[in-house]
Amino acid sequence: MIFKTKKFTDDAIIRNETLFTTANGYLGLRGDTEEKDAAYHKGTYINGFFDKEPIQYGEAAYGYAENHETILNLPDPKCIELAVNGIHFSTGKPDDIHDFSLAIDTTTGILTRSLFWNTPDGNRIELSAERIVSFMHPKCAFIKYTVKNAGPADVRIEIVSSIDMSAHNIMAREDPRVGAKFSSRPLIVDEDTAEGETLCFSAHTRNSGLSLAGTVQTAISDSGAADYTITAAKNCSGGITYTAGLEPGACFTLQKFITYSHDKTEAAQDLKNTVLSENRRFAELGEQKIKAEQVSFLSQFWDVADITIDGDKNNEEALKFNLFQLLQSVGKDGKSSIAAKGLTGEGYEGHFFWDTEAYICPVFTYTAPEIAENLLKYRYSILPKAKERAKIMNLKGVLYPWRTIDGEETSAYYPAGTAQYHIDADILFALNKVLCAEGKCRDSGTKNETGLTSSQIEEMAAETARMWVSLGFYNEHQGGKFCINDVTGPDEYTAIVNNNTFTNLMAAENLYISCRLAGSHADEKEKTEWKHAADMMYIPFDKKLGIYPQDDSFLDKEPWDFKNTPKENYPLLLHYHPLVIYRHRVLKQADTVLAQFLLPERFSRAEKIRNFDFYEPYTTGDSSLSHCIQSIMASETGDSEKALDYFNKTVRMDIDDVNGNVKDGIHTACMAGSWMAVIYGFAGFRDYNSHWSFNPQLPEKWERLSFSMKLEGTTIGFEFTHDKAVYTLRQSGKQDSILLIHRNKPFTLTPAEPQKIFTVQPQLRAVLFDLDGVITDTAEFHYKAWKILAEKNSLRFNREINKQLLGVSREDSLAIILRENNTAWDENRKTAACREKNELYLKSLDTLTPDDILPGIGKLLAELKAAGIKTGLASASKNAPKVLRQLKLENMFTAVADAAAVQMSKPEPDIFLAAAEQCGEWYSDCIGIEDAEAGITAISKAGMKSVGVCTRSQLNAATTRVKSTSEITLKLLRQTIAC
Amino acid sequence: MIFKTKKFTDDAIIRNETLFTTANGYLGLRGDTEEKDAAYHKGTYINGFFDKEPIQYGEAAYGYAENHETILNLPDPKCIELAVNGIHFSTGKPDDIHDFSLAIDTTTGILTRSLFWNTPDGNRIELSAERIVSFMHPKCAFIKYTVKNAGPADVRIEIVSSIDMSAHNIMAREDPRVGAKFSSRPLIVDEDTAEGETLCFSAHTRNSGLSLAGTVQTAISDSGAADYTITAAKNCSGGITYTAGLEPGACFTLQKFITYSHDKTEAAQDLKNTVLSENRRFAELGEQKIKAEQVSFLSQFWDVADITIDGDKNNEEALKFNLFQLLQSVGKDGKSSIAAKGLTGEGYEGHFFWDTEAYICPVFTYTAPEIAENLLKYRYSILPKAKERAKIMNLKGVLYPWRTIDGEETSAYYPAGTAQYHIDADILFALNKVLCAEGKCRDSGTKNETGLTSSQIEEMAAETARMWVSLGFYNEHQGGKFCINDVTGPDEYTAIVNNNTFTNLMAAENLYISCRLAGSHADEKEKTEWKHAADMMYIPFDKKLGIYPQDDSFLDKEPWDFKNTPKENYPLLLHYHPLVIYRHRVLKQADTVLAQFLLPERFSRAEKIRNFDFYEPYTTGDSSLSHCIQSIMASETGDSEKALDYFNKTVRMDIDDVNGNVKDGIHTACMAGSWMAVIYGFAGFRDYNSHWSFNPQLPEKWERLSFSMKLEGTTIGFEFTHDKAVYTLRQSGKQDSILLIHRNKPFTLTPAEPQKIFTVQPQLRAVLFDLDGVITDTAEFHYKAWKILAEKNSLRFNREINKQLLGVSREDSLAIILRENNTAWDENRKTAACREKNELYLKSLDTLTPDDILPGIGKLLAELKAAGIKTGLASASKNAPKVLRQLKLENMFTAVADAAAVQMSKPEPDIFLAAAEQCGEWYSDCIGIEDAEAGITAISKAGMKSVGVCTRSQLNAATTRVKSTSEITLKLLRQTIAC
Repeated sequence: MIFKTKKFTDDAIIRNETLFTTANGYLGLRGDTEEKDAAYHKGTYINGFFDKEPIQYGEAAYGYAENHETILNLPDPKCIELAVNGIHFSTGKPDDIHDFSLAIDTTTGILTRSLFWNTPDGNRIELSAERIVSFMHPKCAFIKYTVKNAGPADVRIEIVSSIDMSAHNIMAREDPRVGAKFSSRPLIVDEDTAEGETLCFSAHTRNSGLSLAGTVQTAISDSGAADYTITAAKNCSGGITYTAGLEPGACFTLQKFITYSHDKTEAAQDLKNTVLSENRRFAELGEQKIKAEQVSFLSQFWDVADITIDGDKNNEEALKFNLFQLLQSVGKDGKSSIAAKGLTGEGYEGHFFWDTEAYICPVFTYTAPEIAENLLKYRYSILPKAKERAKIMNLKGVLYPWRTIDGEETSAYYPAGTAQYHIDADILFALNKVLCAEGKCRDSGTKNETGLTSSQIEEMAAETARMWVSLGFYNEHQGGKFCINDVTGPDEYTAIVNNNTFTNLMAAENLYISCRLAGSHADEKEKTEWKHAADMMYIPFDKKLGIYPQDDSFLDKEPWDFKNTPKENYPLLLHYHPLVIYRHRVLKQADTVLAQFLLPERFSRAEKIRNFDFYEPYTTGDSSLSHCIQSIMASETGDSEKALDYFNKTVRMDIDDVNGNVKDGIHTACMAGSWMAVIYGFAGFRDYNSHWSFNPQLPEKWERLSFSMKLEGTTIGFEFTHDKAVYTLRQSGKQDSILLIHRNKPFTLTPAEPQKIFTVQPQLRAVLFDLDGVITDTAEFHYKAWKILAEKNSLRFNREINKQLLGVSREDSLAIILRENNTAWDENRKTAACREKNELYLKSLDTLTPDDILPGIGKLLAELKAAGIKTGLASASKNAPKVLRQLKLENMFTAVADAAAVQMSKPEPDIFLAAAEQCGEWYSDCIGIEDAEAGITAISKAGMKSVGVCTRSQLNAATTRVKSTSEITLKLLRQTIAC
Repeated sequence: MIFKTKKFTDDAIIRNETLFTTANGYLGLRGDTEEKDAAYHKGTYINGFFDKEPIQYGEAAYGYAENHETILNLPDPKCIELAVNGIHFSTGKPDDIHDFSLAIDTTTGILTRSLFWNTPDGNRIELSAERIVSFMHPKCAFIKYTVKNAGPADVRIEIVSSIDMSAHNIMAREDPRVGAKFSSRPLIVDEDTAEGETLCFSAHTRNSGLSLAGTVQTAISDSGAADYTITAAKNCSGGITYTAGLEPGACFTLQKFITYSHDKTEAAQDLKNTVLSENRRFAELGEQKIKAEQVSFLSQFWDVADITIDGDKNNEEALKFNLFQLLQSVGKDGKSSIAAKGLTGEGYEGHFFWDTEAYICPVFTYTAPEIAENLLKYRYSILPKAKERAKIMNLKGVLYPWRTIDGEETSAYYPAGTAQYHIDADILFALNKVLCAEGKCRDSGTKNETGLTSSQIEEMAAETARMWVSLGFYNEHQGGKFCINDVTGPDEYTAIVNNNTFTNLMAAENLYISCRLAGSHADEKEKTEWKHAADMMYIPFDKKLGIYPQDDSFLDKEPWDFKNTPKENYPLLLHYHPLVIYRHRVLKQADTVLAQFLLPERFSRAEKIRNFDFYEPYTTGDSSLSHCIQSIMASETGDSEKALDYFNKTVRMDIDDVNGNVKDGIHTACMAGSWMAVIYGFAGFRDYNSHWSFNPQLPEKWERLSFSMKLEGTTIGFEFTHDKAVYTLRQSGKQDSILLIHRNKPFTLTPAEPQKIFTVQPQLRAVLFDLDGVITDTAEFHYKAWKILAEKNSLRFNREINKQLLGVSREDSLAIILRENNTAWDENRKTAACREKNELYLKSLDTLTPDDILPGIGKLLAELKAAGIKTGLASASKNAPKVLRQLKLENMFTAVADAAAVQMSKPEPDIFLAAAEQCGEWYSDCIGIEDAEAGITAISKAGMKSVGVCTRSQLNAATTRVKSTSEITLKLLRQTIAC
């Protein structure tokens, strides 16, 4: 894919410099032009090369993070200045420039710029520049700069190739929201020379104890010049000056071979020599070899990572662009991670966050697992600092920093920093996922085949678990449950809360994983403690709403007044004091929804639907990490169009500069999120517990989605359309076979049988019946039971009042009767009355016989049985089994869902989903039959088609409506499922 | 009282400079010596004269406080340097100095220093210095400096009197915990001259827009010199030099008349002239007049404020010292308040906190009400800034700053700053108290006789109420109660919590007061809203513990591990990260206890005892505001010795430098707290709702406590001993009479009957009986009822099991029986069984007759009735009234406490306190009779003497023990009460 622009206005340049960055995860060169004029901010970064300074607090306290850390903008090695006949060339004079083009090719990894310059003295110059930051030689980059005289006259050109030693970070005084806070220049130059065609410097940081060396070799290639001169200045900034005479049609091409490297200051002496010799070797490779290697590296990457979206090429390109940027940004040496802005800018100071593990690791886990491993190796490398931090925080084990470069906590606002203890769990969760994806987590032991040794894995597992058990405690006030107080979850719009659901769930997960992975780094006693804490983990749950509140106090918060919040007041954190945001029910991102995505098997589908629906209205998406998860979970609820809306916002965040801050760098986590939205969302991938399942659900406009993934050493190809799902074993791993799951059906791919195809269109596989009003009518029995009870208690009761009781629970029915009689009973009397009514009702059910089956139902059931279509009962009545027995229908049902076991009754979808699951059929292959509004809503929420029996209500929302049960036939059901 | 020291080692000097400060609430001169040598930190302050600079945040956010504000250390006007025969005098050479004495007289307001200096050349010089900062002329101070030649030879002395223009604040680099953070010199000198004997300067602040002028006139008085010269230098720092020849025995005395004043910069031009003319007038008064005025001012103050504690002169002196310091520190001009450190040092940057209203206002409200008024006038003056702040915080009305000098919020840590919204209520509460104490709050309208006009009072009332209703909301999730989320209460060891009990209680109080005071500044509709919010205010309460949790999450916090906390780790905030402190159950100060002190009529005595006992173990007292409240509430629970322990820690905080930080200034709130501990604690004063009640309870070692107070314009004298309480009308106000309350007995003092005397020793006025085992024995009835129930349900039950049921509630008894039978019943069945058991028991009670009255009880009841001693029934049994009827004793009891109405059953004191209250008698005048351990504990907690009937238990804790009820006689009871 080629990402291209023809724009070079000032506005465009600001974005271009970020978006056309070339980088390899170690060295990053912003997409600024070689020439200085018109550049917005020229940037050169090494991943993990930073300086630090003490944080100034308005009011400091014990244990606060001590230092700022900031990635440094290094001396700029790209610099080339061109003059023709003494006239300085500048892209800042757009009227003189024609046919401008800037393009980066994601398959070759080459940035190309070309343009024509009409000089003020009437000449025309063709300029083309190529730039490569080598994936194979992480410390090296290559620039080719060609000047062609496009006529009409002879010209004399002058080219100065240099390293701009004056480059520095954007400072806070220039941009307080982004700028660095250094009080004095952080990089101190020790040596700075120009000799022959070689520029070379060495330097060290003021406070962080790092040294840096850089060299640039310039060389003429393909000179069509009549004559030329080469002059070296005294230092890098002076550079090498080339002058040449060019006849019309003649070219003059310069190559720059760049090598930058850093190390601890102690190793500074050797660094310069290493850099010089590495640079020599790189230059000796030559242009063609360098390009060929780059292409080869990328072809290997795209072989797995490539994604096709037929019907949405625009987003396909954006997605590929995002993947390419991630590959460019991510550290691959086990000593660095991936900064929030990659190597494209100075936003967030070059810090590493949980974004790495929660968003970016999954991408590489399934496309280039060795990269994911190295990200976790970096986390191992900072374990000692995380141990120190835990001690300061009065905790055992390790507490990873919320934001850092070298492992030290640098978050200057602890309520949204240190309080996010979940970082420990995020890391261990990602580690576990990498091991599982590589097929190593099914073993009880771990092997040292990953980037991490088994001992290192064990240590990380043990130390993170220790943190959690020392942070929480068994709270007698909560029935002895394990509680974790005063934390902040990923949704930073609430802070310092008790029992953040996300944190507690992930802590429990961390503890379970640790039990499995800690090996000899913990004894059995300790592991038993971890398991106990995990088993006893308190998870906030609200019975009335059937949802998991974000934390203990979430439902006590005042709902945010969205109506009276003007658009320009978003993101809220820039327009309201934290206290205002914290005390309201409003989210930056829905972390409970995120938890339900990450831990899918801990929640029923009904719960996920309900929680998503509950949180969505409060979710502002003020965090760029929000939309992708919303997209995934919208897919899970079956709403692919909503999922696409969210996806559109996330996939084009940087390309379209949605938030207007691309100038500070790309949003790496958001880019990774766009991949997740496709794979976990539209393809419905789930990877929990090494269960590789898929539930493809394409949005209407998408015709075909295809991609590959690495799973347990195999490479699998996926091709999903609206009709079918094709799974293909492209390359097998150590084990021959791979077990996958399509929806709820496991299947195996082997070299012998390398492909499986499934239909995606709904198939009629199960019919789920409501009881009352669909199979039989017990309304009269209920009426009589209430009547007896009412008379016994001298309460007024008649058919008019009875109408209010339809579809209403026993307890609520009694409440209505009492209200009608202006009577109040205490709890005990009410309980007793309900029990008595039920006994009366049950007794009356004894009179029920098969004659009471509603018209056509007996026949329908027989027809379904004959056709091999399953049948399920989805009734809210706890007496359903008895009714079935009386009707002698107990053997006609594959499954009878237990009304007492589901969380919420209709109109929530729980009972229908439970019935489908008991039938063993996928929800979209089921039809529900109902006679009440609430029931139809429940079926629809469950993602099923419905038949409405309109004896009592209109049921406009039903897929198919009938006036009597006698109209329901197998044929009708088949028509309905195909709607 | 004269506060005196003879120490002048470096250690002593550090404390002396703070403790011997002379100040008048406007101008403060630290107690440093006139000479520069050996001084620790020479300080000169004007209340409210400050500069500001932007706060540097590690990570800033919307609405954060913008500026630091810091009181400025001004040019030092005290400077005098002495040389004798060319030898420079210095207190830094202690070997040469003898008979050193430094003393401040709280009745004259004069600081006196005297010493003898043995000069290295064999002479002896007597030096004495006096210093006055005039209460009558707030901008002026006076110094008298006398040098006497004590022989043996003639000497030539040189004295330089100057203003040290180089004086500046302690900077953060010198002491980060105290120092100011100015990046450049905050005070810019505009003019600086010396002419004749007059020094004069003018200056302005860099950022705060204030200007300052100062002048010093030096004059020779009483010269016994043989000859002398006077030379003026060019500027204030150069000063005026006097040389004189002194024969042995001759004196040379210099006087310095000092005037300092400040204003807004706009008014700078006039300032210098005003200062010069005011200085001239002051100097013309002359030494004697200045001293006489000072004595007269103080005598007026002490006339009301004086306190005598016979038996504890040490603490009496400390208390007087504290009152004197408060008088010196407090702003009296309505434009300034009282800084946390007064005018004695730079700690807390000279800021005003809630300390002013919550701790210091009460002292002046009852001793010098015009001062309290002026403190509130200051709050009115900053109303516009508080309005702005509310707007920034998305609130209506006003939000007062947590810490400030000029009204701008300057707290750089909002969780313990802005989140303390209670400041609004503290201010309005103090305002209301001043109005009440002046007798103005019984009227529905308000008059403009206070420092504030009625319109100003109305505005403050309305605007604070508006803040509260916009901050909180009616929370459906809490039954529609009015909740206030994400606040911090005074106990800063928890922060950003929901429904801090203190805050909610005080918010409700604020709203109620506002309804009364807002006058025409709010319409009836708005007032109705306020009242509704107050009525619906949610107050956290835990039924199981019977206590008010500090906030919604308090009982969910993990108890702090006090056992494993080393002493040196206190105060905790200096040794643990805020997150560690916040997530634990640990307090800096018990704010719920404080609320129960401030709002005494909202809580029963039992509740206060229980809450105090609950919170005390978690209360570290890390705040200097803690001990005094603990002392007051220890008095309330009847534990005068514990109250004395706390009092000792609070009253001598500064004199003994308990926290080792007196060098930074006194603790004004703690000093005020020591007064509160005496008046509200040992004297038991309560002033809620204009009810002036007293309940004196002296600690054993105190023989007599006497003091005066101003109440509704009258001056009342109080004299309390262990035997009696004497109330004397010393001076009547506008109304002739004043209504006071001794314990629970109201009485009136009038000019005609100006004194009332009450006995304090316990008098036998009521006897409170337990029922079962004291009046009759229903144990057998219970046994039989359980037996029948058990048999009916086929449960094993016998006398052995029955033993476990003694004193156990019905529900718990059933639980024991079921446990013994390894049986589980559901809630409904258990409820039904308990009801059935009770019905059986009640039926069996029908067989009870007067014959079942236990021996001697009938006679005793008759005896008590005859003697006019009241009788109360304090039984936990809800069937008590029926039992009394059966025994035909229903007319023998003055009061039958309702077991269902009390919060907690025995061993909590509720039922005995309820019975005493129903009898209308003070708890210490009651005796309880009990046969169970829990009952004796309850009586003892209630503060009563007890008689234990030891038929079942030992009852070692009872005051008197009998083996049978027949032994209890009136005589025995009289002996018991006198124990």
